[in-house]
Amino acid sequence: MSDQTGRRKTRQLYIGNVPIGGDAPISIQSMTSCPTKNIPLVLAEIKRLEEAGCEIVRLGIPDEESARAIRLIKNETRIPIVADIHFDYRLALESIEAGADALRINPGNLRNKEQVQALVKACRDKNIPIRIGVNSGSIDKTRFSHPTAEALVDSALEHIKILEELEFFEIKVSLKSSHVPTMVRAYRLFAEIRDYPLHLGVTEAGTYEQAIVKSSIGIGALLLDGIGDTIRVSITGDVVKEIEAARTILRSLGLRKEGIEIISCPTCARKEFDVEAAVNELLEKTKHVKKYLKVAVMGCVVNGPGEASEADVGVAVGKTGAVLFKNGKVIKNISKDQIISALLEEIFQ
Amino acid sequence: MSDQTGRRKTRQLYIGNVPIGGDAPISIQSMTSCPTKNIPLVLAEIKRLEEAGCEIVRLGIPDEESARAIRLIKNETRIPIVADIHFDYRLALESIEAGADALRINPGNLRNKEQVQALVKACRDKNIPIRIGVNSGSIDKTRFSHPTAEALVDSALEHIKILEELEFFEIKVSLKSSHVPTMVRAYRLFAEIRDYPLHLGVTEAGTYEQAIVKSSIGIGALLLDGIGDTIRVSITGDVVKEIEAARTILRSLGLRKEGIEIISCPTCARKEFDVEAAVNELLEKTKHVKKYLKVAVMGCVVNGPGEASEADVGVAVGKTGAVLFKNGKVIKNISKDQIISALLEEIFQ
Repeated sequence: MSDQTGRRKTRQLYIGNVPIGGDAPISIQSMTSCPTKNIPLVLAEIKRLEEAGCEIVRLGIPDEESARAIRLIKNETRIPIVADIHFDYRLALESIEAGADALRINPGNLRNKEQVQALVKACRDKNIPIRIGVNSGSIDKTRFSHPTAEALVDSALEHIKILEELEFFEIKVSLKSSHVPTMVRAYRLFAEIRDYPLHLGVTEAGTYEQAIVKSSIGIGALLLDGIGDTIRVSITGDVVKEIEAARTILRSLGLRKEGIEIISCPTCARKEFDVEAAVNELLEKTKHVKKYLKVAVMGCVVNGPGEASEADVGVAVGKTGAVLFKNGKVIKNISKDQIISALLEEIFQ
Repeated sequence: MSDQTGRRKTRQLYIGNVPIGGDAPISIQSMTSCPTKNIPLVLAEIKRLEEAGCEIVRLGIPDEESARAIRLIKNETRIPIVADIHFDYRLALESIEAGADALRINPGNLRNKEQVQALVKACRDKNIPIRIGVNSGSIDKTRFSHPTAEALVDSALEHIKILEELEFFEIKVSLKSSHVPTMVRAYRLFAEIRDYPLHLGVTEAGTYEQAIVKSSIGIGALLLDGIGDTIRVSITGDVVKEIEAARTILRSLGLRKEGIEIISCPTCARKEFDVEAAVNELLEKTKHVKKYLKVAVMGCVVNGPGEASEADVGVAVGKTGAVLFKNGKVIKNISKDQIISALLEEIFQ
């Protein structure tokens, strides 16, 4: 582990034109929630995902029609597509044929060695990586009675071994659990022993409020250790929320510098101003801003100036007016009415 | 650091009847956002906080009227009260006199040694602990140009030294930053060298969506290390959301066993059922449940049974119906119409 001093060294691979691992930025991915064979629906969902900042899209491929749909979807979009397949190697071959940029499939779930060989050959021919994705459902129940971190790592290593024996190393790994401490421990154990790039995620995390907490803890704790190369926040609900949360996780850790990061106090008896309303107005008016800026809105003069001085631009509001800061220096005194417009002026200049 | 093998050993102190540190459960606290001297408003906010699961309430004390209000507030509520004071030792003495159960004050901000001695004597007489709360605004700018983790720890140690020289050790410490990696690193550094109980929080975390992500990462990463004795999620917005998020953080890490934890899939092309609607209906109907249960709602049969079998009770939904699991065993096949009622029956039995 590198504990905040740097990022773990991993092999690099490509999903389409998106590098994963090595010194590549940590990428954000999601999975569509509509039937893959319903192409207009899929394309609409992909468009919303891309606009929100998604960089890789995974599609569930439960049948041949879905595999064939990949070709038509690829014609209409440039985002790299991962085909998610369980058990059926023919669906994997069809997905590759249809233009999938990567597969998620566990080779140990295929029927026999011939199927694995055919799969690896097809991947090698088209330079397509495979994500081995283990979770609580994929552990070896003859050896582990519970889906512990050790059981998850063991399962991943079994699948990896099958590919490595065929000298296939274009592998990305995920070790997901719905139990956050297990998930964190599994990735940490794996990161100590192997250098494949890691796809981080907490699985089956629930609806918005629980999912965002679990994903932030699990993904965030690992990224703080320098572990993780691509992330997926799983939410039962709108996929766009997954991307927004993923971006916020990366920005909070300084791993992405984009958009407006608000520094605002929780407000207390000392507040002299409706901070929440001001912040929400600012966020609404700046949601399409791409450049990174740290903007402080502080409701009092006690913590205000100290924290706001670390922001690129900020206000600290007192009884009778406010002070506008920029890069740690007071620019001017303003009235409370001018707070929003003064901040917007600095943001958009 | 104990890295998931156990909890860091800390001294124990009491805030009212709530133990902090040692083997005490990790407690949840918040701070009221209305003027402390507006007693009906404060009492209404405290009631909402208590109902949501808050165990300690902090009040900002910017003036004498607020300090005196503590007595009237204490008459009407049993939750322990922390008086939050900056600079003015007379407000601290008045708050103690009025019945505050703890103080948050940084002794280095008092004017002279006599003031500190008077404060310590008053705390000792009434057995009242002091939280030293440092943040980016309180670093020694003659020695540190930026509020780094080291600067935060240095600042805390300076304040601690003042109390220790008077042989006062009823100390709790917070080292907050709005920058999550700095906050995590500061607490980790401090935890390696001192055994005072720690109050965890990310400060000035912004409005709901950013605040919950930042707080979950920062507080969660530390709790995974066994660091942290009491927590406060800071949100610019409704304080009740802070408590809900804090409870979700603790439950996600297995540190609280209360309420319904939902295991539900993000849904994909394989889903056979509106998982989000079902989960939201379940959450609404079980939000007052105190006992801990892990309830799975899985939208397909691929990951469904594997994950659901780890839950106390769960359903995995296929094309034509669903399977009800309990403690890892299938109880019965049910129709899709029966999913909610079957789960509720198991939850409430």
